[in-house]
Amino acid sequence: MDLTKTVDVFKTYLEKYMALNYAGSLFHWDAATGAPKGGVESRARIMGLLQAEAFVMAISDKMKDFLDALGPELDSLDEITRATYRKCKRDYDSMAKIPPEEFREYAETCALAENCWEDAKERSDYKSFAPWLKKIVEFNKKFIGYRGYTGHPYNTLLDDYEPGMTVEKLDAFFEQIKASVVPLIKKITQSGVTIDDAFLGVPVPKAKQERISALLMDALGYDTNRGMLRESEHPFTTGFGKNDVRMTTHYHESAFLSSLYSVMHEAGHAIYDQNSADAIANTVLDGGVSMGVHESQSRFYENIIGRSRGFWKRFRPELVGILGGEFKNISAEKFYLAANIAKPSLIRIEADELTYPLHIMVRYEIEKAVLSEKDFDADSLPEIWADKYEEYLGVRPRNDAEGILQDVHWSSGLFGYFPSYAVGSALASQFLFFMNKDINAERLVEAGDIGAINGWLKEKIHQHGSVKMPEDLIMEVCGEPLDSKYYTDYLEKKFGAIYGV
Amino acid sequence: MDLTKTVDVFKTYLEKYMALNYAGSLFHWDAATGAPKGGVESRARIMGLLQAEAFVMAISDKMKDFLDALGPELDSLDEITRATYRKCKRDYDSMAKIPPEEFREYAETCALAENCWEDAKERSDYKSFAPWLKKIVEFNKKFIGYRGYTGHPYNTLLDDYEPGMTVEKLDAFFEQIKASVVPLIKKITQSGVTIDDAFLGVPVPKAKQERISALLMDALGYDTNRGMLRESEHPFTTGFGKNDVRMTTHYHESAFLSSLYSVMHEAGHAIYDQNSADAIANTVLDGGVSMGVHESQSRFYENIIGRSRGFWKRFRPELVGILGGEFKNISAEKFYLAANIAKPSLIRIEADELTYPLHIMVRYEIEKAVLSEKDFDADSLPEIWADKYEEYLGVRPRNDAEGILQDVHWSSGLFGYFPSYAVGSALASQFLFFMNKDINAERLVEAGDIGAINGWLKEKIHQHGSVKMPEDLIMEVCGEPLDSKYYTDYLEKKFGAIYGV
Repeated sequence: MDLTKTVDVFKTYLEKYMALNYAGSLFHWDAATGAPKGGVESRARIMGLLQAEAFVMAISDKMKDFLDALGPELDSLDEITRATYRKCKRDYDSMAKIPPEEFREYAETCALAENCWEDAKERSDYKSFAPWLKKIVEFNKKFIGYRGYTGHPYNTLLDDYEPGMTVEKLDAFFEQIKASVVPLIKKITQSGVTIDDAFLGVPVPKAKQERISALLMDALGYDTNRGMLRESEHPFTTGFGKNDVRMTTHYHESAFLSSLYSVMHEAGHAIYDQNSADAIANTVLDGGVSMGVHESQSRFYENIIGRSRGFWKRFRPELVGILGGEFKNISAEKFYLAANIAKPSLIRIEADELTYPLHIMVRYEIEKAVLSEKDFDADSLPEIWADKYEEYLGVRPRNDAEGILQDVHWSSGLFGYFPSYAVGSALASQFLFFMNKDINAERLVEAGDIGAINGWLKEKIHQHGSVKMPEDLIMEVCGEPLDSKYYTDYLEKKFGAIYGV
Repeated sequence: MDLTKTVDVFKTYLEKYMALNYAGSLFHWDAATGAPKGGVESRARIMGLLQAEAFVMAISDKMKDFLDALGPELDSLDEITRATYRKCKRDYDSMAKIPPEEFREYAETCALAENCWEDAKERSDYKSFAPWLKKIVEFNKKFIGYRGYTGHPYNTLLDDYEPGMTVEKLDAFFEQIKASVVPLIKKITQSGVTIDDAFLGVPVPKAKQERISALLMDALGYDTNRGMLRESEHPFTTGFGKNDVRMTTHYHESAFLSSLYSVMHEAGHAIYDQNSADAIANTVLDGGVSMGVHESQSRFYENIIGRSRGFWKRFRPELVGILGGEFKNISAEKFYLAANIAKPSLIRIEADELTYPLHIMVRYEIEKAVLSEKDFDADSLPEIWADKYEEYLGVRPRNDAEGILQDVHWSSGLFGYFPSYAVGSALASQFLFFMNKDINAERLVEAGDIGAINGWLKEKIHQHGSVKMPEDLIMEVCGEPLDSKYYTDYLEKKFGAIYGV
């Protein structure tokens, strides 16, 4: 077979592979947005089979043949095909050692565990979830055993979400953040400065919050013709190619900012995917370059746009028009300050921008520990969790729902994923710094011209999907690698000003 | 490999096959219940790939090996395995001659055509849909060419939905119905009897109609823990095994009976599937024995239960409690009569029980014709359609939306499917006749004890899924084959009494 023909057959093969992945994603979307409870087990089985089939395709002899055939010819291939090869090769190398039947069992376990987690969270009952968590961790350890690792076993999983990321780098990363953020929080707490946010608790009916969602999606440039917003327990974004990128939110009547910022956050993810170049639509390259870079976009829309003074100046009138009532007396500055209260708290997705990375640090340390301990004690985790929250944030969960059960990730088998949230936040600040060399982000937000910001991000980041490696992309955008100093500078400047410390 | 092992491997293979089918169904459900418009083409492509993959599995060498291995051993296998073999063998024999790539194209064409049909219907613009219809018919003709046929080319498609059904049988079937129903309608029209149904047009807000849906699902025994109701353009039922059987309805503000009977109709389909035996859950046998028998159940719940005097006697108080207002003055008898007005009309799914089979006859004759004509003229179909409606029903559509564009079926490639609606109606009457030898159906409905009826149907029909062949099932239930005299007797007696003719 000549090379062009091989590439064609390879791409057809990958289309089928993507169709299986999309089917899995649709079952996941469906399950999270209201599928009947009674069908949980049968759907878990179906999802398990579909994911296993995709898995088999990723590590098949056929895949190996493609990779063997294309490997020596890389120099004569175009950039997209090279990137496709690289992505498949990475997946092949990392997964080929896991027996497909075990992976199928794992996928099925995760689907069931996710359902159990939902119930357990509702009843704040970690004990009923612990055996599932144990199972999932054991699966991951076994898989790391098959796959091998360098340095720390956790590195293998970290690299899945953030190619090139290691425990060594993350230890240093979090050390630096701890060194900056922990004393800053202490100064803020000791400053005695209090910001009035009582008005944020005024109940806002769901119907009004839905109008706010619509306003934000429109303002941010999320294309609702190529996506939609629904409700789920935990907000997320999923897609079936750039032309159908969906997101969810969760409305809390007495905390309307929660959904407001969830929508902005998920819109960041979704706009990234909607902005992929047509040339890579519905291919393995359609989607972000890494979880960290993906998260940098959600954090950019949520925090850098949404929690800026400019945002509140520009959007306060419209928002207050929807909110009505006593909100009419709240100035843009009051909204800005209330949206930026830095106060240690228990729930990650409700955390403020400053304390947020410490929530991640807790999860990072627990993941690192359970993956290296020979036989970790699942029952002790709520205690460990609570101790760490007390140590870093000075708060202690009163129950499992506001503690260890708050996030869906572990029930879905997503170990190694959390750190990308902190990496993403750091990258968002770094991108902002370099964006400001070309355009004035805050002024554009204040003018309501998010389009100009989208344009910059699309050109530099979004359009490329995962054609580039994360380090290369960051280097191209910034001229230097990831550096958390932009993040700590940003946090120190912003919160220093707000609290006058 | 020994036989037990072969059967096990075969069943594992079929599980994967079903997972692909379920994935296709979920994309279909998703598309019909609100998926973003902009993703239509990518999703069509994904669905095409998934369906093609299932298709490949149904006709693969592996499938052939299984069938070859099991065929000579049938006598030593249990009933379920025998039925599984029979079902797969039928599919294999019918499809193995269609090139997979053409089938993939076909599936993709249908997905796109369905979307085009939705737009075309909205704009009542058949012309924009005609090229798609032409394409789909040509695909079907080509496939019949590959597959071969006995007697009439249409027979090959009829047999897909109703094993053993032929043009010859259906010509006789419709002849008999025409001989009974057409003069009965004439007598009714000439009788001058009019039934007051003006009150049926009183607007009922969607929220109230949703409460009616909930009431009916509960009363009929549809398990909402293993299913759910949503809205779509055209009501339908789909499922992912017996534990997740979903249905849709369409609310019309000024015709609340439309959704009321849609829900009862779809509940009949759904209860059939929910009542499958556990032993065949999520297998190729999970689902009805044939389209006609499936339709017999939907018609049973819609017409024989829902359009009975007993139903209105029993449920009027609760329904009126929801409807409120002037409905409070309507007696059960008035509801019963208004729900049974026999009056030629244009829209199949809104048609009354008596004129309904004539709507099917129109479609049957058109399908028969386009499939036998060498190069049929798609542009002439609206005219032919209108002429036939005028001839049989005495009414003529004023536009395409109320004429040829009213049904989704052709856009989905469902040729040969419509006749099963009439077969189903006929079977419902036949089953009623034999049910009444054991229990008194009308009295049970009047007592609100639908459970006893469900129980009879579950034991005789539902639990078996498609373990039996339709002829065998009918023979076991009735002691005789399908006979349309029960249908014409039922219609003549019921409508003769209502109109005193």
